[in-house]
Amino acid sequence: MSNIKEYINNNKERFIQELLELLKIPSISADSAYKNDVLNTAQAVKTSLEQAGCDTVEICETQGYPIVYGEKTIDKKLPTVLVYGHYDVQPPDPINLWDSPPFEPVIKTTDKHPEGAIFARGACDDKGQMYMHVKAFEYMINTNQLPCNVKFMIEGEEEVGSSNLAIFVKNNQEKLKNDVILISDTGMIANDVPSITTGLRGLSYVELEVTGPNRDLHSGLYGGAVANPINILAKMIASLHDENNHITIPGFYDEVEELSPEERAEMAKAPFNLEAYKKALNINAVYGETGYTTNERNSIRPTLDVNGIWGGYTGEGAKTVIASKAYAKISMRLVPNQDWKNITELFTKHFTNIAPQGVTVKVTPHHGGQGYVTPIDNIGYQAASKAYQDTFGKTPIPQRGGGSIPIVSLFEQELKSKTILMGFGLDSDAIHSPNEHFGIFNYLKGIETIPLFYKYFTELSK
Amino acid sequence: MSNIKEYINNNKERFIQELLELLKIPSISADSAYKNDVLNTAQAVKTSLEQAGCDTVEICETQGYPIVYGEKTIDKKLPTVLVYGHYDVQPPDPINLWDSPPFEPVIKTTDKHPEGAIFARGACDDKGQMYMHVKAFEYMINTNQLPCNVKFMIEGEEEVGSSNLAIFVKNNQEKLKNDVILISDTGMIANDVPSITTGLRGLSYVELEVTGPNRDLHSGLYGGAVANPINILAKMIASLHDENNHITIPGFYDEVEELSPEERAEMAKAPFNLEAYKKALNINAVYGETGYTTNERNSIRPTLDVNGIWGGYTGEGAKTVIASKAYAKISMRLVPNQDWKNITELFTKHFTNIAPQGVTVKVTPHHGGQGYVTPIDNIGYQAASKAYQDTFGKTPIPQRGGGSIPIVSLFEQELKSKTILMGFGLDSDAIHSPNEHFGIFNYLKGIETIPLFYKYFTELSK
Repeated sequence: MSNIKEYINNNKERFIQELLELLKIPSISADSAYKNDVLNTAQAVKTSLEQAGCDTVEICETQGYPIVYGEKTIDKKLPTVLVYGHYDVQPPDPINLWDSPPFEPVIKTTDKHPEGAIFARGACDDKGQMYMHVKAFEYMINTNQLPCNVKFMIEGEEEVGSSNLAIFVKNNQEKLKNDVILISDTGMIANDVPSITTGLRGLSYVELEVTGPNRDLHSGLYGGAVANPINILAKMIASLHDENNHITIPGFYDEVEELSPEERAEMAKAPFNLEAYKKALNINAVYGETGYTTNERNSIRPTLDVNGIWGGYTGEGAKTVIASKAYAKISMRLVPNQDWKNITELFTKHFTNIAPQGVTVKVTPHHGGQGYVTPIDNIGYQAASKAYQDTFGKTPIPQRGGGSIPIVSLFEQELKSKTILMGFGLDSDAIHSPNEHFGIFNYLKGIETIPLFYKYFTELSK
Repeated sequence: MSNIKEYINNNKERFIQELLELLKIPSISADSAYKNDVLNTAQAVKTSLEQAGCDTVEICETQGYPIVYGEKTIDKKLPTVLVYGHYDVQPPDPINLWDSPPFEPVIKTTDKHPEGAIFARGACDDKGQMYMHVKAFEYMINTNQLPCNVKFMIEGEEEVGSSNLAIFVKNNQEKLKNDVILISDTGMIANDVPSITTGLRGLSYVELEVTGPNRDLHSGLYGGAVANPINILAKMIASLHDENNHITIPGFYDEVEELSPEERAEMAKAPFNLEAYKKALNINAVYGETGYTTNERNSIRPTLDVNGIWGGYTGEGAKTVIASKAYAKISMRLVPNQDWKNITELFTKHFTNIAPQGVTVKVTPHHGGQGYVTPIDNIGYQAASKAYQDTFGKTPIPQRGGGSIPIVSLFEQELKSKTILMGFGLDSDAIHSPNEHFGIFNYLKGIETIPLFYKYFTELSK
């Protein structure tokens, strides 16, 4: 694969242009107002896989948004790589904090991306990283260097829990049969510090509703005499962490995998600058569970965060009202061994138990998924590591990720194969935030590195 | 004033129709989108005062919405009654909880209003109660029975703090000179249990902003490692009450007027049915400060309530984000002797002090006002009491109100006269809530009772 650099050089403008077109479609799976855009994105992905050289590409309907499935089989005796990605994106709000419209991609340079970065919702998560695989595949086909079979499974509901993908996977085990699953939906430490994510956190996402009086009340006539659902919700949320920021839900930590001192020492080797971290976020201090470092808090430890809260009068000016209802969305990041369904039950039970007289609470589970770990002695990991060594000139650092791709543990369970997480984004790329972006360097480096994974994985499989 | 009943009977349809027209104008002072409607309402009030028989009516411009001022002087040697009311209304949201559009008044009967009630925002607070005075005045003019001089001061910013009225009052002490101030902007216990409000709570209204990281963050990559502004805000709000629901702000209770056992025993005589109260609100328990009854909690005790809270993702579905900012609106109801400016300072100082590292907080005072008490041996109170005895056949019960009319204490300070609060609404009329309404019985009973107040006040002033 000596000519990959040359191929990228000759085609890079087109690679970028094709991605920009894909980013213009607002495929927001969480908001039904964008249904047609999500469906159009699926069609665009299908077309791109056909043009890249798949034998067959289908739009597989589900109860929700469809899954785009494509494959290229060159020899049944050779190994098969299953590529997973998603074409849906997070909602862009708060929209007013974007420097340019989220679905009108622009290229700008940043400190971390001197060669330029594409600013758009989904640029990094996950359209940009997913499309690297399509272009890497195109290269291998056009230069007749595809060393093994490949299957693509690109879904449209990753940002809302992949519930229909789970059903699809369960029902299509033969079709999806593979030797390794390859995903680019995570990050690396820095452009000059390549890393491979070896672990992901699980997730439990719940929505809360606290109801007090049956109607909004005048805070003068009733203030002090009835339970105010917002005050109560605040009190209940506050009680979910103790003074050491340990989560207080009974049984929450029972299954948590505790790392050995050696493993923690290994983790501590990853380059990390606390001052730079605080400066980048403009905070005067980090905050979290007593007894753990920042890198541990956001990777090997479970968390509980309120992702949204609302109730009462939130408009301009003042309204002296006691709201009838208050709401919150809460997500818990889980670590390997914590069962997300069990945690969701523990949360629901606890939150209901701590509700004081005078209010009623409703907990609605949204979605969730298990944590995941890839052993680094696995040949998939080895192949990825060798690929990075070739393209970055450095051995990548195995790194635990704090994010969640709930479907990954289900892949292992249903398809009996390991997943390799070759992420090329940076934490600073602002995924899920205003001004999400993806470095041109990272995009092209991904396209360059992926074919080498195919090469080494095929060799190591012999 | 023997023919008042007859006059009301002959004009009742017109009285109702005129009020319905006034209620159709959405004079929401808190929302600048309704500016023209608020201004049009001022014009409508001006016209109604002219038609009722004022000598002069002016629209007095302010920095904000204008004050409608009208007067009728029959003899400088006679006493002067200053009528205060407001033509602005609270925002109607949550709009979806209204059974009929808030600015399309309809008349429906209810358990408490078998003769029908007008459903519309402002029906009771305060357009309906303010308009009773216009019609009572019309009666006295048309039947040549006005026993004294009268001045009307109807403002358009009561629901947003009356800051410009305060300036107007300070600058027009001679013009506003009076012997008693009469206001109908409170309630009574029941249609067969007349009461007069002898005390009002003060108010301090603040808006809070808690800022964590400088942008919204992915809760997987940063969750557990940085202070989440929503979790922190919840924690800070929760800490404002202790386990007995005492407010924890240092110095908050220093000036609170403690009632004597005798006074509390007197208060306890007011009819109150806890089961009916809970049933009406569909709550399984009341909630509040340990050691006080429900009627004490919402009248003689200060409170702290969150009136609104928002932050993060509040849309459909799930977004795993750590918000950069979280917000809340908080109002504190104060009792006589508590200085609202001092309390606002104490709150600001305390809230800033308890902010943990990792976030910054901003407290913005909205508005406020002092509490107020009217002694029942005052001739204004006596005149009102006699008026109710004539029209209701019962001596009204003196009652402390939980609400606030911040301007009342300023009236006493600047104009050196006492305010009499003749309220004809019911607590169940849902002021500040969806489906606000005002009983036809109450509206007409107010028109019937008010002229008798003029009569007795003039007699007792001799």
